[in-house]
Amino acid sequence: MTPVGRKPDDGERYRFILETAARLICERSYEGTSMQEIAAACRMTKAGLYHHIQNKEQLLFAIMNYGMDLFEEQVLAKVRDIADPVERLRSCMRRNIELVTQGVSKEVIIILHEHATLTGEAREYIDGRKKRYVRFIEDAFAEAVKAGRFRPMDPTIVAFSFLGMVLWVYKWFKPDGRMTEQQISDGMVDLFFAGLAPAGAAAPGLSLVPPSAPKEEAS
Amino acid sequence: MTPVGRKPDDGERYRFILETAARLICERSYEGTSMQEIAAACRMTKAGLYHHIQNKEQLLFAIMNYGMDLFEEQVLAKVRDIADPVERLRSCMRRNIELVTQGVSKEVIIILHEHATLTGEAREYIDGRKKRYVRFIEDAFAEAVKAGRFRPMDPTIVAFSFLGMVLWVYKWFKPDGRMTEQQISDGMVDLFFAGLAPAGAAAPGLSLVPPSAPKEEAS
Repeated sequence: MTPVGRKPDDGERYRFILETAARLICERSYEGTSMQEIAAACRMTKAGLYHHIQNKEQLLFAIMNYGMDLFEEQVLAKVRDIADPVERLRSCMRRNIELVTQGVSKEVIIILHEHATLTGEAREYIDGRKKRYVRFIEDAFAEAVKAGRFRPMDPTIVAFSFLGMVLWVYKWFKPDGRMTEQQISDGMVDLFFAGLAPAGAAAPGLSLVPPSAPKEEAS
Repeated sequence: MTPVGRKPDDGERYRFILETAARLICERSYEGTSMQEIAAACRMTKAGLYHHIQNKEQLLFAIMNYGMDLFEEQVLAKVRDIADPVERLRSCMRRNIELVTQGVSKEVIIILHEHATLTGEAREYIDGRKKRYVRFIEDAFAEAVKAGRFRPMDPTIVAFSFLGMVLWVYKWFKPDGRMTEQQISDGMVDLFFAGLAPAGAAAPGLSLVPPSAPKEEAS
């Protein structure tokens, strides 16, 4: 997922442009931001900017692809090989919350999810990348149901509930607020996975001691 | 919450303006939409539009207040007097999902939650109205915990998980899609409230028969 065939400094410069543009677009909207202003914020000439980016629509597309790259590198790539489907999903939720709270590229993620200004093939392409994530969650969930680890529910409702909880975090999380990202992550994982537990499963926080297990004498 | 001191036809005209403007702003962004275009879409002259709306920032503020009015009329006002806190929250979730799926004013709700173009006092005022809703959820949750109906968790995490699940629905729900809004509502209520159930509570769908209850002879 790291840029291939591009010198590292070019890659850094390119990411800097995308992050800077994302910040301006979040502040002023896509329509309200000119390429001139983006160039100025990047301390480049307009011609210098056009050396990296063809036009404004292509810039928006690049920001969204960068958002999906970040997500795939920092979330999907790190969890997709976890064999246990429950642990795969838990870890996925934690890492996705990290991505939207650690926030070096918060504006990139906001643009990815809030601004549907792309049209035609570019839009279809980004929607396709997002759909693959939804499918990933649905598949892990279905695998866990099959193994009797989760109760049966509609996988799409489960996937979009997961995404809603996790992605809404960027709307209210404050880095200097009462809660750490760790607390948010722990709380949401606890709430969401308790809701999926099959009938008769131990409540969260309780240890699973089989009824027939030998016991030490009490008191 | 209905407009007071305004003739009904004026109220209808005003709502029509706000809904039409919201639709244009969602399509083209706030910056990308002119008052001229909004007037044209409302089949009014620009002077006629300015008879109802002072300026563009005031229009955006009016749309957001209208969104909060809709929400308070259709959700809060209908559930706030339910005595049982669990039932109050369940009903609240159902009604909020209805609001974002029935969608006559979907764009109004999208603007309310996605576009932070307001500044200064107007922004603080809308944020204050939103915060009262968060507080309402937190309070109902705390009441249910106190009554032993929910397990103890951080009320803020519970409130924002609730909101994330419910409000994210407008991003993916399709009126002609596989799932009805009733199915989404049933599924999300089931998932969310099972996650809040105290340790040892019956799993969803199981009846609560006390262990000492007399039994009919089996087989």
